[in-house]
Amino acid sequence: MAEPTPIRIFDTTLRDGEQSPGATLNYQEKLEIARNLVALGVDVIEAGFPITSDGDFKAVRAIAAETEGAVVAGLARCVARDIDRVGEALKGTPGHRIHVFCATSKVHREKKLHKPIDEIIRLSVDSIKRARTYVDDVEFSPEDGSRTELNVLVDITAAAVEAGATTINIPDTVGYAVPAEYGEIFRHVREAIPELDRRDIYLSAHCHNDLGLAVANSLAAVEQGCRQIECTINGIGERAGNAALEEVVLALRTRRDYYTRFATQIHAARIYPLSRMVSNFTGLQVQRNKAIVGENAFAHEAGIHQDGVLKERSTYEIIDPAEVGVPSSKLVLGKHSGRHALRDRIVTLGYHVDEITLGRVYEAFKTLSDKKKSVYDEDIEALVESQIDASSSTNLWRLVSLQVTSGTNAIPTATVVLADTTGTQVTDASTGDGPVDAIYSAVQRITGVAVELLDYQLRAVTHGKDAQGEVSVEVRHKDLRVRGRGISTDVIEASAHAYVNAINRIRQVATRDRAAGGEGEEPRA
Amino acid sequence: MAEPTPIRIFDTTLRDGEQSPGATLNYQEKLEIARNLVALGVDVIEAGFPITSDGDFKAVRAIAAETEGAVVAGLARCVARDIDRVGEALKGTPGHRIHVFCATSKVHREKKLHKPIDEIIRLSVDSIKRARTYVDDVEFSPEDGSRTELNVLVDITAAAVEAGATTINIPDTVGYAVPAEYGEIFRHVREAIPELDRRDIYLSAHCHNDLGLAVANSLAAVEQGCRQIECTINGIGERAGNAALEEVVLALRTRRDYYTRFATQIHAARIYPLSRMVSNFTGLQVQRNKAIVGENAFAHEAGIHQDGVLKERSTYEIIDPAEVGVPSSKLVLGKHSGRHALRDRIVTLGYHVDEITLGRVYEAFKTLSDKKKSVYDEDIEALVESQIDASSSTNLWRLVSLQVTSGTNAIPTATVVLADTTGTQVTDASTGDGPVDAIYSAVQRITGVAVELLDYQLRAVTHGKDAQGEVSVEVRHKDLRVRGRGISTDVIEASAHAYVNAINRIRQVATRDRAAGGEGEEPRA
Repeated sequence: MAEPTPIRIFDTTLRDGEQSPGATLNYQEKLEIARNLVALGVDVIEAGFPITSDGDFKAVRAIAAETEGAVVAGLARCVARDIDRVGEALKGTPGHRIHVFCATSKVHREKKLHKPIDEIIRLSVDSIKRARTYVDDVEFSPEDGSRTELNVLVDITAAAVEAGATTINIPDTVGYAVPAEYGEIFRHVREAIPELDRRDIYLSAHCHNDLGLAVANSLAAVEQGCRQIECTINGIGERAGNAALEEVVLALRTRRDYYTRFATQIHAARIYPLSRMVSNFTGLQVQRNKAIVGENAFAHEAGIHQDGVLKERSTYEIIDPAEVGVPSSKLVLGKHSGRHALRDRIVTLGYHVDEITLGRVYEAFKTLSDKKKSVYDEDIEALVESQIDASSSTNLWRLVSLQVTSGTNAIPTATVVLADTTGTQVTDASTGDGPVDAIYSAVQRITGVAVELLDYQLRAVTHGKDAQGEVSVEVRHKDLRVRGRGISTDVIEASAHAYVNAINRIRQVATRDRAAGGEGEEPRA
Repeated sequence: MAEPTPIRIFDTTLRDGEQSPGATLNYQEKLEIARNLVALGVDVIEAGFPITSDGDFKAVRAIAAETEGAVVAGLARCVARDIDRVGEALKGTPGHRIHVFCATSKVHREKKLHKPIDEIIRLSVDSIKRARTYVDDVEFSPEDGSRTELNVLVDITAAAVEAGATTINIPDTVGYAVPAEYGEIFRHVREAIPELDRRDIYLSAHCHNDLGLAVANSLAAVEQGCRQIECTINGIGERAGNAALEEVVLALRTRRDYYTRFATQIHAARIYPLSRMVSNFTGLQVQRNKAIVGENAFAHEAGIHQDGVLKERSTYEIIDPAEVGVPSSKLVLGKHSGRHALRDRIVTLGYHVDEITLGRVYEAFKTLSDKKKSVYDEDIEALVESQIDASSSTNLWRLVSLQVTSGTNAIPTATVVLADTTGTQVTDASTGDGPVDAIYSAVQRITGVAVELLDYQLRAVTHGKDAQGEVSVEVRHKDLRVRGRGISTDVIEASAHAYVNAINRIRQVATRDRAAGGEGEEPRA
């Protein structure tokens, strides 16, 4: 049998995924995710959109500098300064990619860009050539490609290849395509431009899930000669998100009897830990019935199903949970576990911590294991994440202590003590609609930072009566939206930590310079 | 142009959806959802699996009795007492359906049923005939149909039609199929059995989402002559769930240019309110990037997208949120709103309340609007749901008052007062790992009901500082898992309400009689 065609997995969790409202990732978090994407075996990591902010620029530069074994891509509009900015981010780190895009559909040409197709083609060609002065690897995307007339798509693709593009991505930007139709686009373009095969140009699919068809569309493209799939962990991204990496990969893998001609090089066992990390960092929880990575994905409720699985697993289970890294038992450590065992577990969970951070996590672990008999993977994740955050130099405020009284017949009252970077402690008290509101009022009095609470979520990280609660808040300060997290066996304390964390992060995010764009549009694509 | 073929929407939220771990619905909730499914315009409502419990039996009977304009189906294995039980539930209410199933794939025949195909066909034929003695409308499902050999599928389908089945459902029970392959099954069966078209037998698709392909598979079947799609609100169901009703319907509707030959009779504007109701009742939250009904489904984060939508909506938006009933503004009522305005809003949100319940909701609304300036739709939903629950006659315990002290340097302590059905008040206190744990210990001391806390979630129901928090807990008592909800502007109080609610519901669920099954398998399919 012939060798299967390798299908490249292009992960855009750090670019399209981070565009999910409220999902802003900080620098440390992006690096941690990028390292895990490399370990997962993705071929391309789209690390950001450098022109949009200093944060994106720095993240692309840092990830490009340290990544081996995967191509790092930065996004750019067909605007000289966008391309130059990516070029600068990738400078001195060969083998990486500039990804330029320009909208080509009729509605985008006429209503958004106000440019005829000739001009769009010329602009695209010039931009691709400019990108090629920085790198050998250039991807071009005709935005809203699936709604672009086929002849226009063929013309711009041929011109882009001629200009030096090495990958042509045909995105279903608005999640409008259906599988047979989307596959047909790839068949048509490939047949119309024999040059694509002759020069070994990669065609790529980028699908959004607005009609629930992103995975099926990606697979339909692959069946018609597409060799790169753009996707995100947990399927996060603009609106209803992108094709979920885990679903695309597991469909090809589980149905290798059907997709005999194709294979990815993803290490499936690393999917679940990374899914949890992305969910924790972005605050975008995965619904319980999410395929592959949801809490119920491998749970059998019905008696008939349970009975069947006991008799023969394959009656109701097409994927072994262990295959995608779902641990069979989550209990790992207790108060007698040492530093070494903790480090091993942290590494297995996909985190990279230095000795100083490990020391801090170990201290926090000892404190927690005094309170809690069983320390689960989720507890360890939470400890590591809070220390990664605490080690960030931009933390202005630290929660020293708090005290709360509330009840159905009492006026909820909180006393809060915060320390600033100099160690100076400030104390204040406030009442509120509830204990959490009272704390938040007291924190606002101390910090003087006025924020609006947009979202507040609390979930038990682990099970049982001594479970830790993780609070995730989203706040708005002027036009900035940031998320903060806090964890504790006491939900009130976790709420306070999350709020202080959000206030500290406002400063980090505020440094992201949202430069105005050209072309009559804003630069965040 | 020819009239499009009507595609029947068969909703199984109340059967397959309710099989999601932890999603148990009570009688009132099932009726409320069924009424909204009728208003939504579904063709068939699968209301339960009567043999599995008295609760399912009563729900099927009540829904069948009150439903006009939709067919109500009850599920049965190919076992006489299962079929008789559905027959009994549907007695005196003509026009409804018995749905019988029997596994047919090789792995199920050999490893689960230990029966040769001849015997399975004989059993199925006898069962269909038995069902036809009760009703004219019988659906037959060869379980794990997509993994059944095509010739076996043809044989059993032909026999089922001969025996009197009027709908043949070919389920992708384990979510294994891919679109082209699943469509091909329908094409083959339809071509092999001309009798299907001659007798106007409906073929039906039932797809699970284990590989993220449930919607695409359903659409592929429709393109090959399938005329019924089985699906659930929010895509809930066993493991990764079923095809999501909202995605299937909106794909056919949004792409009517492509699916010109097909149409459903769903009133799309009722999708969003019902999605919220199902999410609230089941405790299965919809992830933010869920298509159609997720919080971010119509949110545009990127500058380029925001800019495009402002210039021309269709650049980045293929569905108008109003089309699926997403309200453009959620602020509706305040302290000066009257009973009439409240009732209107409750009806718009899809709830059916009698005068007594309306009176209670109105009292709770007045109390809330004293605390909160703006009362949102979500607040009203929460008020209605807590009153629907409070009106249940099986509530044993009621929270009278509570008082909590906690803090970083204090031992969390709670004092709780509960009243039983006679009005007798019992007071007790306890310490805990945090204030919520302290409350739960005090409640356990008072009620004497030992439960294990499996899950605890808290979310802000609305935005802003005076938002209400909704706590959803899942507890285990012996082998029962139940969910409880509580709502308050004080998260601690909401936590107490949720816990007391769960303890009250244990009794309701305990009445569900999980009768042992035949065929060497348990009856919950």
